[in-house]
Amino acid sequence: MDAAVKRTRLSPAERRAQLIDLGVRMLAERSLEQISVEDIADQAGVSRGLLFHYFTSKHDFHVAIVRHTSAEMLARTAPDLELAPLEILRDVMASYVDYVSENRDTYVSLLRGTASGDPDMREVFEETRGEMARRVIDQLPTLGIDPDARTALSVRGWIAFVEEATITWLRSPDIPRDELIELLVTALPAVALGAGAAAALLGG
Amino acid sequence: MDAAVKRTRLSPAERRAQLIDLGVRMLAERSLEQISVEDIADQAGVSRGLLFHYFTSKHDFHVAIVRHTSAEMLARTAPDLELAPLEILRDVMASYVDYVSENRDTYVSLLRGTASGDPDMREVFEETRGEMARRVIDQLPTLGIDPDARTALSVRGWIAFVEEATITWLRSPDIPRDELIELLVTALPAVALGAGAAAALLGG
Repeated sequence: MDAAVKRTRLSPAERRAQLIDLGVRMLAERSLEQISVEDIADQAGVSRGLLFHYFTSKHDFHVAIVRHTSAEMLARTAPDLELAPLEILRDVMASYVDYVSENRDTYVSLLRGTASGDPDMREVFEETRGEMARRVIDQLPTLGIDPDARTALSVRGWIAFVEEATITWLRSPDIPRDELIELLVTALPAVALGAGAAAALLGG
Repeated sequence: MDAAVKRTRLSPAERRAQLIDLGVRMLAERSLEQISVEDIADQAGVSRGLLFHYFTSKHDFHVAIVRHTSAEMLARTAPDLELAPLEILRDVMASYVDYVSENRDTYVSLLRGTASGDPDMREVFEETRGEMARRVIDQLPTLGIDPDARTALSVRGWIAFVEEATITWLRSPDIPRDELIELLVTALPAVALGAGAAAALLGG
């Protein structure tokens, strides 16, 4: 396998993607801090020097790995706009719960480990949360919710709710998957609309 | 002032408390990472060596500062059990919002800065969130909510909701203080009870 990789001649873009891909796969087995440039270079059959041609530092390489996993998560949870409004939300939450379940250790260690305090990593996570919030806010009018300052705060808070409830559940799955998804889905109209209007929406 | 401090003879417990207190006051003006042992020792009129008699390292000293501010926040938001159930929650949220508004920069930098990735700091924050969750769960039966696995997840998520919505509001206060408090208060029954039961509770 390594020999095969060594023989392959890749374009710069392909080589960069290959290095990131190796890093992402390694991230399934160890924390970001434990991913060394030496190991990646060895596996890719390139020199450390060439790796630093693509990434200015180990930290820069780690940020690229995190950016890649965040983009992957966003791709997996893209809304299917052909569904009914509440079904879109349910489908997104199901994809999210399944994606983070498949990548449990990576997800928990990125969002709750040392990386969570690093300014560059935080920027990637904030961009990801921002994109998730934008998608939700775009859908709100179809749920009969006018986006305003209060709603924007609710959606930001709801995303933190989803992350925290899901991480707690991954560490200790005391309720079934479907119940977790229902909890995440119903919480959005509940916090964004207020309980009365949410009850009318969810009951309808 | 420094001269007066220098002349004072303090007991070990008093000296330790004095050093932490100086650190907490310094934290209002700069980030934790910028608090140097030299500055604290100078202000307290003690040697660096004596400071390391009370704290094994700079990091240990920083953790003690964070532990102190967390305890202060918990003391400021202690529930007043003489109030009616929903009023207890409203009173706690008002105290919380006012406390973090007074300590805006400190609060945001501790929970969203470099410290948030440090394992020892995280442990203090997690203990603080755990205590806030326990207080809420203790009060749930008075709101007609049975604490179970689903409720426990909801409360954990709600605390993340409160933190995130409040930090977003501190950075950009687009709605009045009272509206934020109402948003935080009504979100708890909405996520813990489900919208229908929450509407009945909040309407009653």
